[in-house]
Amino acid sequence: MNDASVDLLLTAGRVLTLDEQNREFSDGAVAIKGSEIVAVGPAAELAARWPQAPRLDTPHGLLLPGLINSHTHVAMSCFRGLADDLPLMSWLTEHIFPAEAKLTEEIVYHSSLLTMAEMIRSGTTSFCDMYLFTAQVAAAAADSGMRAWVGEVLYDFPSPCYGELENGFQYLEQLMAEYDGHELVKITVDPHAVYTCSPELLRRLYGRAEKHDALYHIHLAETRDEVAGCLEKYGKRPVAHLDALGVLGERTVAAHGVWLEPAEIELLARRGVKVAHCPESNMKLASGISPVPELLAAGVSVGLGTDGAASNNDIDLFGEMDMAAKLHKVNKMDPTVLPAAQVLRMATRQGAEVLGAGAAIGSLEPGKKADCIVIDLQQPHLTPFYHAPSQLVYAARGADVLHTVINGRLVMENRRLLTIDEEALTLKMQEIQARMAEKTT
Amino acid sequence: MNDASVDLLLTAGRVLTLDEQNREFSDGAVAIKGSEIVAVGPAAELAARWPQAPRLDTPHGLLLPGLINSHTHVAMSCFRGLADDLPLMSWLTEHIFPAEAKLTEEIVYHSSLLTMAEMIRSGTTSFCDMYLFTAQVAAAAADSGMRAWVGEVLYDFPSPCYGELENGFQYLEQLMAEYDGHELVKITVDPHAVYTCSPELLRRLYGRAEKHDALYHIHLAETRDEVAGCLEKYGKRPVAHLDALGVLGERTVAAHGVWLEPAEIELLARRGVKVAHCPESNMKLASGISPVPELLAAGVSVGLGTDGAASNNDIDLFGEMDMAAKLHKVNKMDPTVLPAAQVLRMATRQGAEVLGAGAAIGSLEPGKKADCIVIDLQQPHLTPFYHAPSQLVYAARGADVLHTVINGRLVMENRRLLTIDEEALTLKMQEIQARMAEKTT
Repeated sequence: MNDASVDLLLTAGRVLTLDEQNREFSDGAVAIKGSEIVAVGPAAELAARWPQAPRLDTPHGLLLPGLINSHTHVAMSCFRGLADDLPLMSWLTEHIFPAEAKLTEEIVYHSSLLTMAEMIRSGTTSFCDMYLFTAQVAAAAADSGMRAWVGEVLYDFPSPCYGELENGFQYLEQLMAEYDGHELVKITVDPHAVYTCSPELLRRLYGRAEKHDALYHIHLAETRDEVAGCLEKYGKRPVAHLDALGVLGERTVAAHGVWLEPAEIELLARRGVKVAHCPESNMKLASGISPVPELLAAGVSVGLGTDGAASNNDIDLFGEMDMAAKLHKVNKMDPTVLPAAQVLRMATRQGAEVLGAGAAIGSLEPGKKADCIVIDLQQPHLTPFYHAPSQLVYAARGADVLHTVINGRLVMENRRLLTIDEEALTLKMQEIQARMAEKTT
Repeated sequence: MNDASVDLLLTAGRVLTLDEQNREFSDGAVAIKGSEIVAVGPAAELAARWPQAPRLDTPHGLLLPGLINSHTHVAMSCFRGLADDLPLMSWLTEHIFPAEAKLTEEIVYHSSLLTMAEMIRSGTTSFCDMYLFTAQVAAAAADSGMRAWVGEVLYDFPSPCYGELENGFQYLEQLMAEYDGHELVKITVDPHAVYTCSPELLRRLYGRAEKHDALYHIHLAETRDEVAGCLEKYGKRPVAHLDALGVLGERTVAAHGVWLEPAEIELLARRGVKVAHCPESNMKLASGISPVPELLAAGVSVGLGTDGAASNNDIDLFGEMDMAAKLHKVNKMDPTVLPAAQVLRMATRQGAEVLGAGAAIGSLEPGKKADCIVIDLQQPHLTPFYHAPSQLVYAARGADVLHTVINGRLVMENRRLLTIDEEALTLKMQEIQARMAEKTT
C-alpha cells in the first residue's frame, strides 16, 4: 500500500461509529492524520496499513464520537451551588444577577476553563456557549483545545461586559474578525430572548448572523411566563413573534424550546430551526418539559444542552442523556419513547446538525474531524455489556471517559488533562469562590 | 484523658454529620472503635485525644454517612442493558422472565457481588433487596462486608428458587435461622405484590414478619395496571386492600408507591408504613411519578431506591438523588420542591428509618454504626464548593467516592475495593453474560 503516514491510531475493544449505517467494530480503530479521521475499521487492518503509526490502545475501551453540548454558559461554573432550590425570580434577582454584576474578564476566563476541564473529563468535545465577556470564553476554548461556538449575549439594557448596546455590536464585530477562519472557535450571534430584546434588535442581529454566515442562538419558549409576556406585549407567542420578524431559519438555534404548541413545532420544522434541549435545567428550574418526541417526529434536529452550572449543576452530557431518556418516557407514560440509541444521536450527530456542522463532526467517518472519546468498560456498573447505546445512556457516567481527542489532538489521556493545569486552576477558583461568596451572600 | 484506644480516625477537610442539629465541621474527624462511631468533631481535638490511632486523612475530602438503597434487586445486574426501551409486558415476558428462568445460585451470587462492588464504589453502604435465591444474595452481602436487608420473594406460583410455595416458607425459615443475630445481614419477609399474592399469602407472610420482628417488603401501587387490577379483583385499591388484610404497619416497606391518592397517603402515614421511592425505574419503565412531596408532608418516611439494573440501569444513589430532586420540581412546576438537603436525608437518615434502623445508621453520631464515605472534592465538577447538599445532590457522582467504611471496616480505600476481587468477578460476569445472551435472545 501506498498510504501516507498517520499521526495516531486509536484502537479499542469496541468502536461505535454512529455513521449512517451505524457501524460497530469489535477490536476496531480510528486512524487520524492532522485534525482528521482518515480511516475507521478493524484494528488489525488499520495496524497493517500503518504499522509505524503512534498508537493508543484500549482493549477494554469503547471508542465513540465526542459528545456535543448544544447549549451552555461555561463561565457560570463560578456560581455552581451558590443558590439552589429557590423561586425563579428570587434565584435570578437576589443571587445570580448580583453575582453576574461582579464578573470580570479574569473570572470568566478561569470559570470557563474550569467547565472545559469538566467537559473534557466527561467526554464532551464541542459546545455552544452564550454568555458575557465572550472574548475570554473564546480564549479559554482555544487554550483548552475544545471545539466551540461562542457568542456574546445582547439585549436592550447595558451589559456588564460591553456597556451600552451599540458597543455590543462593536464587540461582536471584533470577535468575528479575531476568530475568522479559526480552526476550533466559531463566533455566533446571540440575542438573549424575546423578553429582553426589542424586535429591532432581534432583526438587526439576524442581519449580522447572515452577514457572517453565523449561528443565531437565542433562548426560546423556555418558560410559561415568557410565552404569556410575549403574547401580552406583541399579541403573538414567541415562535410566531420571531417568525414575523423573519429571524427563524436554518441558522437559528433555539435553546430550551419548552412551551411549543403543535403548530409552532411544524413551523420550526418548516423553517429548519434547530432546538437545544436542556432537560436537567428545565427540571431543576421547573421550567417545564420540552415536547422532544414531537420535535423529532416533525423532523427538527434536537441536540442536548446542559445549560449553565447554576441550573444543573454539573456539565456532564452522560447525565443529561440519562435524564432525557427517562424524563420523556414518564412524561408520555410510554417506555418506548426516546430509546437510548436516539438519545445518543441527539448528543452526537444531531448535536452536530444543530451547530451546522453535520458534515464535520458527530460521527466517526473518514473526512470528518477527529473528535472522539474512549470509555473504560472494565467497571462494575458497565458489566455485563449487551448493547452500546443502553450502556452509554443508562449506565455510563462522565467519569468513565479515559481519553478525549479533539481535532486530532489528545487533550486527555488516562484521565490526565493535557491542555489544562488543573491544580493551578483549582487554586484560582478557590480565590474566585471567596470573592463570589463575599459579594453575594 | 482516659479514653480507650480507637481503631480508626477518619479525617476530612469537611464533615457532614446529618445529625439532628445538622452539624458540619471543617477539618473534622470521626473516631471508630470496632463497628461503632465513638466520636465526631474537629480533627485536631480527636487527634489529640487518640494520638496513636491509625488514621486515614483526606484533606480534600468530604466525609458523610454512607448512602442507603431502600429498594433494589442486586442480582439483576446480569440483565443490565439486555433489553431496554420496550413496552412493559414485552420487556417482562419476552426478556426478563425468560432470563430469570435461567438463573442459578451461582449466577445470583456473582451478579449480587457485582452490584455490591458497584454500590461500594458509589458510596452506598446499606441496601434492602428482594429477589430470588436469597441465600446467595445474603452470602454475597456477608462476603462483601455490606449491610443488607434481604428477602426471598414469595408469590402464588412456583419459584425458580424454591419451587412450590410451601417450600418458600421453609426457605424463609432457614434463612431466618441462619442469619439470626448476624451483624450485617437481616432477613426480611417479601410478598411480591397484590397482583401476584393471594390475600391468604399476604396475611400469612405478615404473621411471619411479626414472628421474626422482620420488615415486610412489598411492591405497592407501582403501576396504573396494578391499581386497576386490584380494584377489579378485590373492589379496593391496593392500599385499602392491604389495610383490610391487616398488613400495613411500621414494619411494612412499600416499594415504589406511585399511584397513591390523598386518602391513601394519610392511611400510610397513620399506619407508619414506609415508602421506598425509585424515581429512575419509575421513569424508565414509565410507571408514573410518586407523590413524594405529599408523602413527606404527611410524615411518611421516604427512602430512595434504585430498583434493579434491568430498569435503571446503574445502581448509583448519587444519580438517584439528582433525578429525584429534579423530577419532582418539574412535576410540580415549583423549583423549591424537594430541596437538596431533603433529598440527601432521604438517601441517609430517612432511608435508615425505612429499614427500621434509624437508631443505628443514617448519620455520623457517637453510638451509631460506622457506615461512612469520603468524597473527593478536588475535581472540576465539584469546584467551587458553597453548600454540601447542593454539591452532593446536583453535581457529585458515584465515581467521586474515595473511601467507603461499613460497620467500622474499610471496604474501599482510594477507589480500591478491599473485600471483592474485581478482576475475577469481571471474568466470571463475562461468562455469565455469554450464557444470558445465548439463552434469551
